Amino acid sequence: MNLILLSDTDFLTPTRVILNGRRFLHIQDILKAQCGKSLTVGKVNGPIGQGEIVSKKSDAVELEVKFDSNPPEALPLSLILALPRPPMLKRILFSAAMLGVKKIIILNFNRVEKSLWNSSSLKPQAITDQLVLGLEQAKDTVMPEVILKKAFKPFVQDELSILIEGSLALVAHPGGAGSVPNKINRPVTLVIGPEGGIIDYEIELLKSAGCQTIDLGPRILRTETVLPYVVGRLF
Amino acid sequence: MNLILLSDTDFLTPTRVILNGRRFLHIQDILKAQCGKSLTVGKVNGPIGQGEIVSKKSDAVELEVKFDSNPPEALPLSLILALPRPPMLKRILFSAAMLGVKKIIILNFNRVEKSLWNSSSLKPQAITDQLVLGLEQAKDTVMPEVILKKAFKPFVQDELSILIEGSLALVAHPGGAGSVPNKINRPVTLVIGPEGGIIDYEIELLKSAGCQTIDLGPRILRTETVLPYVVGRLF
Repeated sequence: MNLILLSDTDFLTPTRVILNGRRFLHIQDILKAQCGKSLTVGKVNGPIGQGEIVSKKSDAVELEVKFDSNPPEALPLSLILALPRPPMLKRILFSAAMLGVKKIIILNFNRVEKSLWNSSSLKPQAITDQLVLGLEQAKDTVMPEVILKKAFKPFVQDELSILIEGSLALVAHPGGAGSVPNKINRPVTLVIGPEGGIIDYEIELLKSAGCQTIDLGPRILRTETVLPYVVGRLF
Repeated sequence: MNLILLSDTDFLTPTRVILNGRRFLHIQDILKAQCGKSLTVGKVNGPIGQGEIVSKKSDAVELEVKFDSNPPEALPLSLILALPRPPMLKRILFSAAMLGVKKIIILNFNRVEKSLWNSSSLKPQAITDQLVLGLEQAKDTVMPEVILKKAFKPFVQDELSILIEGSLALVAHPGGAGSVPNKINRPVTLVIGPEGGIIDYEIELLKSAGCQTIDLGPRILRTETVLPYVVGRLF
């Protein structure tokens, strides 16, 4: 936690917050911070600043906060992700938020196990929890938007071409036509399919909607590694 | 497991292997592969080929193997890594092996908790297990070399300058002098410090040995994300 993310309900006054639960425990047990200590804080979807510990009780801590800077710029990348298994989903949500991705669409594919759509890791609170951890790690405050799309075909046929307008739309796919471009100066939409691969029919629909396939090289990378690898190369 | 990694002890004859345990269970339960099915196999530090299932028992499977291609080229990157906590260490070893790193030096730093050096995740077998999983994911066969260095100063003063000869030696460090270069055509040695950061004294010693500090941008990335991010950009 390199930044303590504050929401409206944490504020007692415009400059005073009270924290308990996870954030309190982090301040007490990990940071071992005492009164007078200043910590980096940020308002959800707002500015970043410092919070000085002004009072500490057995289960809560109060900070006097002052905001003076903006969060880092968003990464100009939207992510379309085949629903992975819960542990992987958690890590990718964390990682996407940490890297500055602000739009994440979780999509069904043929090789996504249908039962995964019932996973509790898709509940709004479970998703938010991972995004908050990613923002706290990165020192960012801007919450990514996460959209669930349980039907592949209508999404790709009716919505995708509008969504990718003005961006370079890339599908990570072994045997893809191109490779990942280096340091491009434009927005990107990145499609990452399921671990078992994207079937030909889906590739054709994605191409019809305006996507290009790219090959990541001879090594088969895990989904959670593809995102930072491609982000590192693109921007 | 995109490739089944075979060691000398698996061979009954030069073209016949018998697998039990983890690899047998994977073939049976995950791949649900029957006799006649061909699977990608590779010899540790050797070639890649196909193995056809020729016999299946309740606890073992026999494959007739034929090798016809070379493993992917090694990534020209050596990794020097501050010893992280066990779960992170496991993920980074996996990830480094998957990305094609062939030399990994695990080094002590001031902000590495000393007790971590007693972790069972540093035992040779525990390290090998993660490397094997990474190679199996990537479809590679060449085992990375992992070296443990429990003393920072003698390593950096006496060994590092020889080790990095002919390579660009980069230290990921917030506030570093440069940024990560794009698509360079030369070998790189990458130093990733502990989560708590590298102290000034250590930075100075690393610089004296010939390393340059690089800043990864305003976002603080987790150690396990730094590696694929930097690899994506460099090569």
